[in-house]
Amino acid sequence: MSTDEKTIARRDFLVTIGRVAGSAAMLRTMAAIGVGVSTASCGSSSAAPGAPVQPPPPPRMQSPRPGDWPANVGVGKTVVILGAGIAGMTAAFEMRKLGYDCTILEATAVAGGRNRTLRGGDSAVETDSVQVCTFDADPDHYFNPGPARISHHHEFLLGYCRQFGIALETFVNDNHAALLHSSTSFGGQPQIKRRVVADTRGNIARLLAMAVNQNALDQQLSATDKANILAMLQEFGDLDGNYNYTGTERAGFPGQENTGSRRRGELVTPLQLQELISETFWQLRQDYGQGLDQQPTMLQPVGGMDRIGRAFEQQVAADIVYEAVVGEIRKTASGVRIVYQDRFGAMSGVDADYCLCTIPATVLRNIANDFSAAHLSAISNFQYSSAGKIAFQSRRFWEQDHNIYGGISWTTQDITQIWYPNQGFGRDSGVIVGAYMFGGPAGNTFAAQTPQQRINACITQGGRLHAEYAAEVQRGISVAWLKVPFQLGAWGISDPGILLSPDGNIFFAGEHLSLLQGWQEGAILSAYHAIDGIVARDVV
Amino acid sequence: MSTDEKTIARRDFLVTIGRVAGSAAMLRTMAAIGVGVSTASCGSSSAAPGAPVQPPPPPRMQSPRPGDWPANVGVGKTVVILGAGIAGMTAAFEMRKLGYDCTILEATAVAGGRNRTLRGGDSAVETDSVQVCTFDADPDHYFNPGPARISHHHEFLLGYCRQFGIALETFVNDNHAALLHSSTSFGGQPQIKRRVVADTRGNIARLLAMAVNQNALDQQLSATDKANILAMLQEFGDLDGNYNYTGTERAGFPGQENTGSRRRGELVTPLQLQELISETFWQLRQDYGQGLDQQPTMLQPVGGMDRIGRAFEQQVAADIVYEAVVGEIRKTASGVRIVYQDRFGAMSGVDADYCLCTIPATVLRNIANDFSAAHLSAISNFQYSSAGKIAFQSRRFWEQDHNIYGGISWTTQDITQIWYPNQGFGRDSGVIVGAYMFGGPAGNTFAAQTPQQRINACITQGGRLHAEYAAEVQRGISVAWLKVPFQLGAWGISDPGILLSPDGNIFFAGEHLSLLQGWQEGAILSAYHAIDGIVARDVV
Repeated sequence: MSTDEKTIARRDFLVTIGRVAGSAAMLRTMAAIGVGVSTASCGSSSAAPGAPVQPPPPPRMQSPRPGDWPANVGVGKTVVILGAGIAGMTAAFEMRKLGYDCTILEATAVAGGRNRTLRGGDSAVETDSVQVCTFDADPDHYFNPGPARISHHHEFLLGYCRQFGIALETFVNDNHAALLHSSTSFGGQPQIKRRVVADTRGNIARLLAMAVNQNALDQQLSATDKANILAMLQEFGDLDGNYNYTGTERAGFPGQENTGSRRRGELVTPLQLQELISETFWQLRQDYGQGLDQQPTMLQPVGGMDRIGRAFEQQVAADIVYEAVVGEIRKTASGVRIVYQDRFGAMSGVDADYCLCTIPATVLRNIANDFSAAHLSAISNFQYSSAGKIAFQSRRFWEQDHNIYGGISWTTQDITQIWYPNQGFGRDSGVIVGAYMFGGPAGNTFAAQTPQQRINACITQGGRLHAEYAAEVQRGISVAWLKVPFQLGAWGISDPGILLSPDGNIFFAGEHLSLLQGWQEGAILSAYHAIDGIVARDVV
Repeated sequence: MSTDEKTIARRDFLVTIGRVAGSAAMLRTMAAIGVGVSTASCGSSSAAPGAPVQPPPPPRMQSPRPGDWPANVGVGKTVVILGAGIAGMTAAFEMRKLGYDCTILEATAVAGGRNRTLRGGDSAVETDSVQVCTFDADPDHYFNPGPARISHHHEFLLGYCRQFGIALETFVNDNHAALLHSSTSFGGQPQIKRRVVADTRGNIARLLAMAVNQNALDQQLSATDKANILAMLQEFGDLDGNYNYTGTERAGFPGQENTGSRRRGELVTPLQLQELISETFWQLRQDYGQGLDQQPTMLQPVGGMDRIGRAFEQQVAADIVYEAVVGEIRKTASGVRIVYQDRFGAMSGVDADYCLCTIPATVLRNIANDFSAAHLSAISNFQYSSAGKIAFQSRRFWEQDHNIYGGISWTTQDITQIWYPNQGFGRDSGVIVGAYMFGGPAGNTFAAQTPQQRINACITQGGRLHAEYAAEVQRGISVAWLKVPFQLGAWGISDPGILLSPDGNIFFAGEHLSLLQGWQEGAILSAYHAIDGIVARDVV
């Protein structure tokens, strides 16, 4: 494998979370939310299977809704929640309904956590830099540096969107007009996805049909099966009457990189099988959209992902203390005591029956605490993705010149992905995400660079996919999550382990403690799990 | 094959259009637009390949833009255009720029042709019925009975959208949460697309890997190829370490038809290969989105497809004579004479140098004319699709109860498809397309029914995919294009043949005379082709 390939392989990691033995007593059938998982996938990797087992007789499972918790169970109890991200605000929103008196300590002046959207005039603050976004003021000109898409089956998050009246629109993962680029394949020339997909299917179908026709699979397939599968393969790969693959209209027409409107009648020459399969690179990119959390339809809030953070904030704003930087997390005889520095620099304390801590482990490990040795060890060793993104304002050359509407191009270079905007189709200018590295060495390199260095590198690399880059992309702004204050990482990638269990009256939540690490749905699930644990203490 | 299957096979027809020999002299490199094609696909079928040939050395083709015609070539010349659909209005819009004096005779009171959108209060008129749409007044509650999606590479149509400022959004063809239903497979139970896709890929990959590992393809694959293709297949099908397929997270989890948020850890049992391949049915539906014109990203105008018709109309309204029903098309010594009945019932005549006739062949054959025998024969024999659609207003049970956001479910029943709305995600109610049959016997049956019979049949059949149908869908309204006045068909499916050539000074256009039959882009291409022919006459 080339260095590029190794980088990619490391990026597409999977975290296997062991089953949690002896989990707390369940309040309801489905209290296993957030625990009992065997595999987890991060926000940007295609999921791989755990060991399959025979399913139990299909229990038509009821969706566990927050309403399942006992009414008024929290009356007279206090909770201090650390962090006004999606996990913390979900917990406050739900627990207040149960009677708990909630206080959220939020280190920054804004709620939402990593749920952020940058628009003209906004600042992107890192530990050693401040960038100001200079996009034109325009409802379509925004950049979601954190979460930027929602799976259609992330139903708790979608339920809140429905409840809060947040308009949603489609987010495109797979666009057959987008590009696949390997520095070492096809002479470094980017290939249009439609060709790669069509020719890959064609070759797979051709080879399997050949094996079937050579009777190589007669032990697997009956005569009827053989006839059926040959018919299926013909359609699957667009094979000719002799089960050969000699090209397909699906791949487009020569000289018309993305169009079929100009002239038809000649097929483009198929890409060579040897090149198509020569790199792990191609495989990953084609199968990416097959992952359970990446399958269509993907969604995004109209106007920016922070519509969700803002909506949660509206619900719990009265509970939030902004610019409250936690300095100590202590256990007391009756519960917890949190010491924090307020916006004026003064130290204050909050006593409560429970603490629900959603502070990222990377930040938490540097806060004075009374944690158990086991909890502290887990917090200290928790690994985070070094993911980052950069965005530019630009003429929509991808639409106007290449018929690319939304979707993602891939490259073996550090920038990894280019995201075309899913909103404002057909307008003159838009915001393009010029790099999204999920983590690993590329993410570390990105974080180590100055904002200007990132811009320069991104324009150079992006230019290998789109010659227009140098002339068109402007006003670059980047976010390297490793260096964002009070986050210090993009998403958790370690086994949650003991952090799924409370430490005395201190409970933990956050996307990193869920089966959907790196997803907002995971943050919500983790909040539900923590609420389960707290409520269990208060049920008579 | 069952009757269902035969119906499906007939629906997914392909029209092969022979090369047009001796086409008119070209005005520019790319004047071959609309002619010189070897295959064409209708608006609703996946394209199949013509015989592939080696492409010429890649000519970096310039997009032929209307601006390529000689300035002022039409000054002093008159054109009467029959029909204010997309073809007719495109022609008027472009020819006026060249100096031609254009008059459009439109039989109805509205421009747009089959580009229509029905909203609350609108009427759907057929030859023997009038339905009034009773949807709630709401920007998301509309029904596009004609064209309803735009391919991302239909760049002339998209160029006009850009020029006219028409907002676009994504249209979803492939949604892995949608359903595939066969009356004769899986006990008639609909299957969630994610399972069918994942298990089909898994089985294909498993079988090909087995053949590779048995050395059955050693004449095709080198040792390196074998290693590479095995790695690729593992990812393609989500195979285990031994290249077996035993299920995948991609298919979802047991008991959670569309979700991964509740509990993970157990994989759903794979569907049996024998059932997956037992019907042509499954194959078509999985490969549908691979067709060149159906690949993602597909688009739709925000607010309804008639945004496009309205925008064209704004440009050429001054040229349109509404409710002008053509009665005669005559050749004169100097050009053409059209006789029509005006809105008051009086007969009028228009003389012009040229006629550009976009009237559908099904209607045209009943208008008195001076056509050549060859043209008349082509017009008389031209076949049209009997496609039709029905829509309902309903609670969004598909989103709220099944996490289906946009996309299409398929069934072997006559209704063929269910389309979930691509706009207004997350709102309480929406408009669902309960049937879209592309033509054939199912379309004929649909057209023969009364509107109420169509509603009843659709609710019965749709109920086999969604039990909610009987209780939830309301206010059904249908359009059977065979019975729509001045259309009498959904789209042309015959070889354009001689109709691509003028008959004296009478030129022909319309989607049926293009390489993209059934698509608005085809209507535009046909208009360009006709303009080419007229301009050629006027070039000095």
